[in-house]
Amino acid sequence: MAAFHPFRGISRDFHGRLDVYGRDWRDGLKAGSDFLRILAPTTYIFFASALPVIAFGEQLQSDTDGALTTAHSLASTALCGILQSLAGGQPLLVLGVAEPTVIMYGFMYSFAKKNRGLGLPLFLPWMTWVCIWTSLILFVLAIFNACSLINRFTRMAGEVFGSLIALLFMQQAIKGAIGEFRKPDEDGLHLDFSWRFGNGTLGLVLSFGFLWTAMKSRRARFWRYGTGFLRGFIADYGVPLMVVLWTAISLVPSRSGGEIPSGVPRRISSPDAWSHKASGNWLVLQDLLKVPTEFIFGAIVPACMIALLYCFDHSVASQMAQQEDFNLQKPTAYHYDLFLLAAMVLVCGLLGIPPSNGVLPQSPMHTASLASLKHLLREKLVKVVDGWNGSSQELSQRLQELVEKETRTRQPNLESHDFTCEVERIEKHIDAMIPTALDEQRVSNLIQSSLVGICVVAMPAIRKIPTSVLWGYFAFMSIESLPGNQFWERFKLLFTAPNKRYMAVEEGHLPFLKVVPFKAIIGFTVFQLVYLAACFGITWIPIAGVLFPVLFILLIPIRQFILPKFNSSLKELDVATYEA
Amino acid sequence: MAAFHPFRGISRDFHGRLDVYGRDWRDGLKAGSDFLRILAPTTYIFFASALPVIAFGEQLQSDTDGALTTAHSLASTALCGILQSLAGGQPLLVLGVAEPTVIMYGFMYSFAKKNRGLGLPLFLPWMTWVCIWTSLILFVLAIFNACSLINRFTRMAGEVFGSLIALLFMQQAIKGAIGEFRKPDEDGLHLDFSWRFGNGTLGLVLSFGFLWTAMKSRRARFWRYGTGFLRGFIADYGVPLMVVLWTAISLVPSRSGGEIPSGVPRRISSPDAWSHKASGNWLVLQDLLKVPTEFIFGAIVPACMIALLYCFDHSVASQMAQQEDFNLQKPTAYHYDLFLLAAMVLVCGLLGIPPSNGVLPQSPMHTASLASLKHLLREKLVKVVDGWNGSSQELSQRLQELVEKETRTRQPNLESHDFTCEVERIEKHIDAMIPTALDEQRVSNLIQSSLVGICVVAMPAIRKIPTSVLWGYFAFMSIESLPGNQFWERFKLLFTAPNKRYMAVEEGHLPFLKVVPFKAIIGFTVFQLVYLAACFGITWIPIAGVLFPVLFILLIPIRQFILPKFNSSLKELDVATYEA
Repeated sequence: MAAFHPFRGISRDFHGRLDVYGRDWRDGLKAGSDFLRILAPTTYIFFASALPVIAFGEQLQSDTDGALTTAHSLASTALCGILQSLAGGQPLLVLGVAEPTVIMYGFMYSFAKKNRGLGLPLFLPWMTWVCIWTSLILFVLAIFNACSLINRFTRMAGEVFGSLIALLFMQQAIKGAIGEFRKPDEDGLHLDFSWRFGNGTLGLVLSFGFLWTAMKSRRARFWRYGTGFLRGFIADYGVPLMVVLWTAISLVPSRSGGEIPSGVPRRISSPDAWSHKASGNWLVLQDLLKVPTEFIFGAIVPACMIALLYCFDHSVASQMAQQEDFNLQKPTAYHYDLFLLAAMVLVCGLLGIPPSNGVLPQSPMHTASLASLKHLLREKLVKVVDGWNGSSQELSQRLQELVEKETRTRQPNLESHDFTCEVERIEKHIDAMIPTALDEQRVSNLIQSSLVGICVVAMPAIRKIPTSVLWGYFAFMSIESLPGNQFWERFKLLFTAPNKRYMAVEEGHLPFLKVVPFKAIIGFTVFQLVYLAACFGITWIPIAGVLFPVLFILLIPIRQFILPKFNSSLKELDVATYEA
Repeated sequence: MAAFHPFRGISRDFHGRLDVYGRDWRDGLKAGSDFLRILAPTTYIFFASALPVIAFGEQLQSDTDGALTTAHSLASTALCGILQSLAGGQPLLVLGVAEPTVIMYGFMYSFAKKNRGLGLPLFLPWMTWVCIWTSLILFVLAIFNACSLINRFTRMAGEVFGSLIALLFMQQAIKGAIGEFRKPDEDGLHLDFSWRFGNGTLGLVLSFGFLWTAMKSRRARFWRYGTGFLRGFIADYGVPLMVVLWTAISLVPSRSGGEIPSGVPRRISSPDAWSHKASGNWLVLQDLLKVPTEFIFGAIVPACMIALLYCFDHSVASQMAQQEDFNLQKPTAYHYDLFLLAAMVLVCGLLGIPPSNGVLPQSPMHTASLASLKHLLREKLVKVVDGWNGSSQELSQRLQELVEKETRTRQPNLESHDFTCEVERIEKHIDAMIPTALDEQRVSNLIQSSLVGICVVAMPAIRKIPTSVLWGYFAFMSIESLPGNQFWERFKLLFTAPNKRYMAVEEGHLPFLKVVPFKAIIGFTVFQLVYLAACFGITWIPIAGVLFPVLFILLIPIRQFILPKFNSSLKELDVATYEA
């Protein structure tokens, strides 16, 4: 077991990535056109990374009576993101302050409030101690190659985890939308029913309006109307544009002269970074030693939970950002990234801001959105098909040559494909068949984290965004993260009319569909469903909630020793490298 | 010119329909299964006919200070509908109290209010006189075969008129949705801003919620999930169900205990038919002669306008209900139907209720929804295609034989079709190629009008429907009436990316697409656009508005003498029987 060779994992990762470090930058800064290609995914992922962090910051603020605010969650996200893009192992990994961190901080705050020994003034210093312990534990885990476990996590585990995150985001969206009908936390001014009712219903309009338009705009490339450029632009920048658009719409009623009760719709309400409230946290260092000894060591307990959580979360996020579907070429760096995470947690702790870790679904979204670079290749192919008047046979051949030339990779045989239907079908075919002509690079991550950094000082603008648009965005992320998740595809298959199953085959998300008996697929899917339900259930238990990673670690023995007994087609359904 | 042979048109129509009268009933009451097939379209058209009449009734009520109410508009619609189904010429023609009638009654009411000679008590008796004159004029028009003009109206006129109606319905939907933000007419109780704001935003939720779900449910047959039966059921009954569903949803907030201001959302507010307010109108007969002579004869002026309007509206509605796309087999009956309409106007007038006339888009919707009977045939075809493993050639042949066997009609050659794509495409192909295996019958119209009659006594239930759902329904009808309207299809074509135009070709709505130069198509479409704009504009002019039929009558010389000079491909774009 690798555990007996301390530092081996780290150094191997380090040197592995060092060799390609130069290329990581060159690939990102290639000729102008390519750079522009990176701009769209960067904008996309910047919003995907900033908006939830803002939402969580809001939550943090209300949980800690303003000791920590959006400014801090943004600062941490920006700082760690920049570090990851400059010195990180896996440059596609997106870091941010995530829900579990917020929950933990909430628990700690209410604990500190209760304990006379600590009290509010020592809350932040004490959290610094928690971070110190956490980073220590992470260092140890990294040094002793804890991440070797990661390759024991098969696709199945990733699928369930991804679905869980999607579920949590959707839950947040629904909670938020309902919350718009409740009275605001900050003050009791707007207690009256009609205010809450008006705010809630307008919230529904904004949330669903955003969700619907955002979903539509992502599909713009398939639209029938408008020029190719326009459709491409909308598909690339539609989601950010919709945030702006719906924020603008939300400003209309309040312009229409006192027509509506003040403060409707509710908007983000975080103080400016330079406000007294937010700017002093780094002073925690002064009070570090004022924390009573018993609490300094007591901090080890929560530290263990957080460390366990981060170790798992960070690695899985990284793993899902480099699923084989994306066929990335460069080496992994789980051990080194965990080592770096330990350092970041330490820094954040000393600055008195909440630490960041690898986040889902943003990390895979990041890779996937970069993968949309292949649209260019696709457009070339579609052009060929459009002007084609030879046989379908020759066409397939011609396309195959083109793909291989463009991507410099040997391709699976395409003869099987039928290109004689209309272009939309062809585009689908091509989507399924093109490998992601994607080079890992550090530019997109650097830019998007820097933009997050700018947000810290852009609070006045950010406060214009209605909270209801945030909830719509949560729902959007939840839905966006599902396609391609085989578990989700199989789940939908359960409800597909038998005479329409072949459609799922054509989409190509479920390659095994033709070889595995349907019964086996159902059994496997139902098992995952039950397991997902269990994980979702556990997140509802107050403090134990953050221990849900344990359930996932349990998946290792279950997958390795128990499942094979029940399901003979497991190899096809859930390939495990160590079995191959 | 036929005008010199009085009664010729009427008698020809009468005997023509008399010969098939028996079949009209037998075709409707065929073996049980067929009867069930008629049930779905009947329910569908019942809602399409009742809901607008209810909305117009609301308008009538506020325009006439409650002298006329929803109860009356429903009564007139039911009465005339039943007469049409029993004794009418074209049994597919849907009758109802339409917007123009409501507008006219509004004008007359404000006129009566001003004139000391008449005054409110004599408003209804005076309207009876207007109806008497109107019916007289209609009798004359019918006797002298005025409807011979109808075959001078080419597809072009129908397209523009249909689009105008769609535009007016959409306008009503938008006006209504905005109106939800205004203070209710009935009382000033809820003047305060937050009430109006809450009501308006909730209105948006309900309107768009209904519209979206209704649109989706119409497409249910193409869904991938759920059993065939379920999908079929939703497609057939989805729209009525959605009215019920969204009404139920609108009841939730008010149930949640005083959470919201009273009277939100606003609902239909018509008195019961048996209320004192509504039940006494037939007593007008007593006061008929109390109307001063000058007003009795003055009534001829408005009567002329109404007669002109009805003559045009009634005939065009009937014409569009039997467009050649539906390829109905039985003879037309424009002259006889106009004659019958004259009688109905007389009866309604004497009963003191507003008269009904043939309505758009309900009449073509009626035929189209009956046309959905062909789904049965289509399912047979799809089954064949599903289980096919021969060549595409043989398949086309096999399908063609099947279609001809099932529909007992010779079919255009299908060899051209490519059936090698997935089923959804095939279904589209088949849709385009199947003739409407539809028999004109009188049952659906009889049932739906009787149901409208029941509504008169069901006001307590109807008052549960939020007005905002009505607005959503107006938008739905407007959108539903567009597909298949070649003008609309060509309009969309203007915005279609050139490399996707072939899609329009495949859909088969624009058969001439391959033979007519694109320039000619653009020119013709733009001309229609301008003309539509002119017609729409005229409806905004207060009283002159009801004269917009004049603009359509102008279309006859324009089409016949002017257009051919400019557009050489006119024959393909707009076939005129008298040119063929």
